[in-house]
Amino acid sequence: MMHKFSSYIKAFFCLFCILLYQYNSAQEHPSLILTKKGVAEIRANLGKFPLFDESVSNAKAQVDAEILNGIEVPIPKDYSGGYTHERHKKNFMMMQKAGLLYQILNQDKYAEYVKNMLFQYEKMYPTLPLHPQTRSYARGKFFWQALNDANWLVYTSQAYDCIYDYLSPVERKRLETNLFCPLADFISLENPKFFNRIHNHSTWANVAVGMIGLAMNNNKLIDRALYGMKNDGIKPGEKDNDGGLLKKPGQKAGFFANIEEPFSPDGYFTEGPYYQRYAMYPYIVFAEALQNKKPKLKVFDYKNGVLLKSLNTLLNLTDSDGKFFPLNDGQKGMSYYSRELVFSLDAAYLFGGKDSGLLSIAQKQGEVTLDDAGFAVAKAIHEGLATPLEKISVEYSDGPKGDQGGVGILRSKGSKEDLTLVMKYTAQGSSHGHYDKLSFSFYEGGNEVLQDYGLSRFVNIQQKGGGNYLKENKTWAKQSIAHNTITQNETSHFSGDYETGDQFHSEKYVFDASNPKLQVVSAKETNAYPGTELQRVLALIKEGSFENPFLLDIIKIKSKTNNQYDLPYYYFGQIVSTNFKYMSPQTLSPLGTKNGYQHLWKEGEGSQVDDNIKISWFNKDRFYSMTSVISNNDKLIFARIGANDPDFNLRNDPAIIIRKQDTKDTYFVSAIEIHGNYDPVTEIGTNTYSTIKKLDIIYQDENYASVRIENKDGESSNFIFAFNDADKYSQHQIKINEKDYKWTGPFTIINN
Amino acid sequence: MMHKFSSYIKAFFCLFCILLYQYNSAQEHPSLILTKKGVAEIRANLGKFPLFDESVSNAKAQVDAEILNGIEVPIPKDYSGGYTHERHKKNFMMMQKAGLLYQILNQDKYAEYVKNMLFQYEKMYPTLPLHPQTRSYARGKFFWQALNDANWLVYTSQAYDCIYDYLSPVERKRLETNLFCPLADFISLENPKFFNRIHNHSTWANVAVGMIGLAMNNNKLIDRALYGMKNDGIKPGEKDNDGGLLKKPGQKAGFFANIEEPFSPDGYFTEGPYYQRYAMYPYIVFAEALQNKKPKLKVFDYKNGVLLKSLNTLLNLTDSDGKFFPLNDGQKGMSYYSRELVFSLDAAYLFGGKDSGLLSIAQKQGEVTLDDAGFAVAKAIHEGLATPLEKISVEYSDGPKGDQGGVGILRSKGSKEDLTLVMKYTAQGSSHGHYDKLSFSFYEGGNEVLQDYGLSRFVNIQQKGGGNYLKENKTWAKQSIAHNTITQNETSHFSGDYETGDQFHSEKYVFDASNPKLQVVSAKETNAYPGTELQRVLALIKEGSFENPFLLDIIKIKSKTNNQYDLPYYYFGQIVSTNFKYMSPQTLSPLGTKNGYQHLWKEGEGSQVDDNIKISWFNKDRFYSMTSVISNNDKLIFARIGANDPDFNLRNDPAIIIRKQDTKDTYFVSAIEIHGNYDPVTEIGTNTYSTIKKLDIIYQDENYASVRIENKDGESSNFIFAFNDADKYSQHQIKINEKDYKWTGPFTIINN
Repeated sequence: MMHKFSSYIKAFFCLFCILLYQYNSAQEHPSLILTKKGVAEIRANLGKFPLFDESVSNAKAQVDAEILNGIEVPIPKDYSGGYTHERHKKNFMMMQKAGLLYQILNQDKYAEYVKNMLFQYEKMYPTLPLHPQTRSYARGKFFWQALNDANWLVYTSQAYDCIYDYLSPVERKRLETNLFCPLADFISLENPKFFNRIHNHSTWANVAVGMIGLAMNNNKLIDRALYGMKNDGIKPGEKDNDGGLLKKPGQKAGFFANIEEPFSPDGYFTEGPYYQRYAMYPYIVFAEALQNKKPKLKVFDYKNGVLLKSLNTLLNLTDSDGKFFPLNDGQKGMSYYSRELVFSLDAAYLFGGKDSGLLSIAQKQGEVTLDDAGFAVAKAIHEGLATPLEKISVEYSDGPKGDQGGVGILRSKGSKEDLTLVMKYTAQGSSHGHYDKLSFSFYEGGNEVLQDYGLSRFVNIQQKGGGNYLKENKTWAKQSIAHNTITQNETSHFSGDYETGDQFHSEKYVFDASNPKLQVVSAKETNAYPGTELQRVLALIKEGSFENPFLLDIIKIKSKTNNQYDLPYYYFGQIVSTNFKYMSPQTLSPLGTKNGYQHLWKEGEGSQVDDNIKISWFNKDRFYSMTSVISNNDKLIFARIGANDPDFNLRNDPAIIIRKQDTKDTYFVSAIEIHGNYDPVTEIGTNTYSTIKKLDIIYQDENYASVRIENKDGESSNFIFAFNDADKYSQHQIKINEKDYKWTGPFTIINN
Repeated sequence: MMHKFSSYIKAFFCLFCILLYQYNSAQEHPSLILTKKGVAEIRANLGKFPLFDESVSNAKAQVDAEILNGIEVPIPKDYSGGYTHERHKKNFMMMQKAGLLYQILNQDKYAEYVKNMLFQYEKMYPTLPLHPQTRSYARGKFFWQALNDANWLVYTSQAYDCIYDYLSPVERKRLETNLFCPLADFISLENPKFFNRIHNHSTWANVAVGMIGLAMNNNKLIDRALYGMKNDGIKPGEKDNDGGLLKKPGQKAGFFANIEEPFSPDGYFTEGPYYQRYAMYPYIVFAEALQNKKPKLKVFDYKNGVLLKSLNTLLNLTDSDGKFFPLNDGQKGMSYYSRELVFSLDAAYLFGGKDSGLLSIAQKQGEVTLDDAGFAVAKAIHEGLATPLEKISVEYSDGPKGDQGGVGILRSKGSKEDLTLVMKYTAQGSSHGHYDKLSFSFYEGGNEVLQDYGLSRFVNIQQKGGGNYLKENKTWAKQSIAHNTITQNETSHFSGDYETGDQFHSEKYVFDASNPKLQVVSAKETNAYPGTELQRVLALIKEGSFENPFLLDIIKIKSKTNNQYDLPYYYFGQIVSTNFKYMSPQTLSPLGTKNGYQHLWKEGEGSQVDDNIKISWFNKDRFYSMTSVISNNDKLIFARIGANDPDFNLRNDPAIIIRKQDTKDTYFVSAIEIHGNYDPVTEIGTNTYSTIKKLDIIYQDENYASVRIENKDGESSNFIFAFNDADKYSQHQIKINEKDYKWTGPFTIINN
């Protein structure tokens, strides 16, 4: 009995210890992205893992220079790119780094630096009015938009967590009362339109409030961050200054809702990779901190582990150089070398099952974060665990439930580098979406063969509209004609109307990359132009007589009315040859007056009596050819971006546009080849001609089409596609030129 | 007495031996670029010097593949780029390589390959008519121009030399009688306009005849090669199909004359670096063969050793990537990686005093020639003798005697890479010359900041005019407005007339690179526009407040009449900001109707009430700013190349043109800065604004001008220049704003 009692006592005592430990552990600092345990391990291993040591040393060099420079906390005044903006941005970055260095190097000067800077902010904040620049729907205090204030708080929370124990309770009280709590309330309670929304801005806002909540152990703020505010006063139909709807009826808010809504189950973020990159940091940093402080929430398991999955998705949404596909509003050049991706990748490694493929990207990144995750990555790389990350052909669904279309990526080995085709058939993509249903872009390695224009903005270059979105982003970059897709009657999809576009999405039809010699993606769009059904089929076809896999592009159009259809291909480089006559105007006029057409110069217009056109061009020592099936009535237009561009905001890139006039049902069929080489040193050109002799639509009806590709040697193959039955087990049979063709599944290719 | 007699006998015997040795040595094979002694040394050292072994192995792989492929000697038919052209070109390259491999590897299959191919040519030649393509002034037999036939013979002579002893006397007789001698006569006797001229074509012709002469020990041919033909029947004033004069009165011909005329004493080749590169091979290969077979000619000492000197000159006429400055007709991208430069550099090393700096370029080239010279280079590199080749600021004179102007190159260390300014004030440059007196181009590393357009031709790309010169070479590329220099009254220098231009040259005025912080080049041009005197001063000025040395550009114009002066700057990239208003046309029209103006679209036109304009642009993550002193009446024109270009032969590059109207005497004064950086991954722009606040002409009279450059901090410096006294010891004194300035030499800079 005594024994039993003592067992109870023992058990009770153990339970008490565990609870106490948990309480303490919940209260101890640092505990967001660095943990006490992690710090101990890091300190014990300094000098052992080069990538970590280099990253420490880089951060140290930066922060030491800033300490030498002295603290500057100017009165806010400028837009992004301007002095006060860049200074405050640098401040929060430096505070975060200094906090981490304080923990890692155990040197008080770093804590002192953070403390002194924080108290300068603490002194300034209580009397600080709204930022004087008025362009934002949610103005900040340190910055022109509250978004940047949220950035500030996300980073500063980490610094505060790191120096928490260095500060006296009185000091903490002052900072929390005069700076952190008011700022968290400003970001949330005073800016409900900013905070209580599904948007990357709101994610930052949620996380800012959540991170400082965790750092201060303030459950009220943590709850607000996770689940949003109950009463936000947002009126139905209210919009932001980009024209984005603030809130759908019944929409939840807060961090979890912001995971739920924009991510598809495949980890695709509806705004596109550029903004997914931007959003990754707050998602992951908060998830990491929650995992450390509130492990019971199992945040990394939320929605089937979508947060960590999304990192892999994002890595796969890049070209061979790691640059993101500039879908929707995306600035070209942004890549997985960004700090957000360094941070997210390290976290994904530590918290996501230690995928060794991630380590090879971390090696390329050449730096790690100064926390438990970065340490784990550096250690694993040093131990030789890195393996290559294979990029794959893959389809990512869009929409919270994965049922709103998607993005299809086809990859194929080329003669020089990997070819990558990216087809977009997503939902609208929130306020950063473009009107480009069924559009695509095409890459050879890191080079764009057929480009997506991206956004019209020079981020942070103040001379260009303060570094913000330029008006040409609306008048050009978002318009359908700016993309490699169909524009009907010179009007953008959904008439360029956001509310309309936001209600719809394209429909996935086929994605099949199982045969590396014949990879196919296809989708349908029936809402962009009411009364017109569009279906596009893009196939990467690898055949022996071609140097590279070629791209076959078939668009089937069915309409209730007669229309004009324009299909541009935005190539790069210089025309080498054409097989048709065209007029060259003596003066250049814009191609149209609105919907993006006003920005295109018409450099030439031709037509072709024959049924094929062929255009070859030359760029960076490589040749490209496009062969298209053309009817008599079609126009071929050479265009160049740059008309009605008084501020030289647009790039003067060229396009060839195939125009079908006064047409109801029709097909656009083109094949695009990458071939040959020119060496300016040997002055030898090889394989400078197209391999395709003839492209024919040899069969078409309501359900099927067959395209014959004949090569220079007279060999041909027939690609046959079923437009109305994507079942991979369905059996099909058609008769073409008295010959029976039978196959299984939605498509086949038959060599003759 | 006996003793004395035996001494005579001995001496006589020795002399006999020497003569016999010399005779044999003159007769032995190989003896052109490979020697018997060299072959023995090479064979003994195979496997020891990696660069040589790799080069052997590369050549072996190529020739083995060709042997496997089988010999093809098709009936000539195509222009360059076409099958028969490329095949015959490949044949002579392969024969030469196979010949060398036969000697080096001592394997009969290589000799057999050469022999079999030669006999296919021997069989074809006697009945071969002129090439069916008629475009050339001197049609060939294997190729459309005799020039390429000469190429063939230069290479094939080497192959013949290598397998000479492998062939029976009967076989040699057949080849010499039916193929080599008739071909040598065809190139010379039957094509005097091609052979007996001062031109890179003629150098090839001379060398072809000379090389086969040396290989066959045919002194008649050797003499013809060295000294030309006595009677050529060329009429005074006759021209080639590029408009170049065939022969000046009293002009000598042959190889020595072709060294004498086009090379200046500094080793600058009057046609420009692109053609100098092309010509280097025949010059050096023949000189090397002459040195081996006729050492008494001391060919490498000819004209103070100009041949080997010219190789150094050529190496210095490149940007940081080794690409030649595209002066005159030059195709961009051509570089010291070309096979002609590999060959010439190796020869220059062996025969020119073993300059260890050349070895570092050979290392970059990554290959050596398979001969005595290449072997010496590979051996020396293996022995660690390579040292870096420092590129220098230097002036190269033009003209046979060095008194026809020149090229000035200023180099300066920049914040990222070396800056290079190239100013051209040469003679016309033969038929490949452009009408661009006092023009310049500006580089940062291998990137063009302000470009020279180069030629309008896609060499060997058959789709583009057969790979030959395009008509736009005359209508655009040669015209003055296509260059960064003054065009008066929309008419090119010398009215674009070759005969006129060919009579004149600019005058050197100052070249002083002795102070790395203030390097100056200046020249005068008084003949391009009769009645108008042009003087340009270009200075690279390094000052502490600037990130990079900036370029100060002063043009002084004095004219007897009122004129319109246009000064374009051909930049790259996108306009970021301007400080003046301009109109943006709704439709684009050409800037003019002729002399190149018809090829420029006018994208904007503005004027400025203030006395400075500032334009900033952005290219490849770098910023550039131009500040110019402007008067009220000046127009600023944004232009873009591409008008009246129905075949898309031109690149659509932009320019800003400063236009002064109805003006007699005037100054153009501009400062160009390279600054800042934009990182698309961090999205941070640094130093994105110009450092110059104000540019002023604070003094001007007939003899002096002073330009004040004021920076953003209000600090200023005065650059003062004396236009009429270039003596470096002359003392000058002027009074500016009541203050006396004294200095020595043609220029100074004074900080205020």
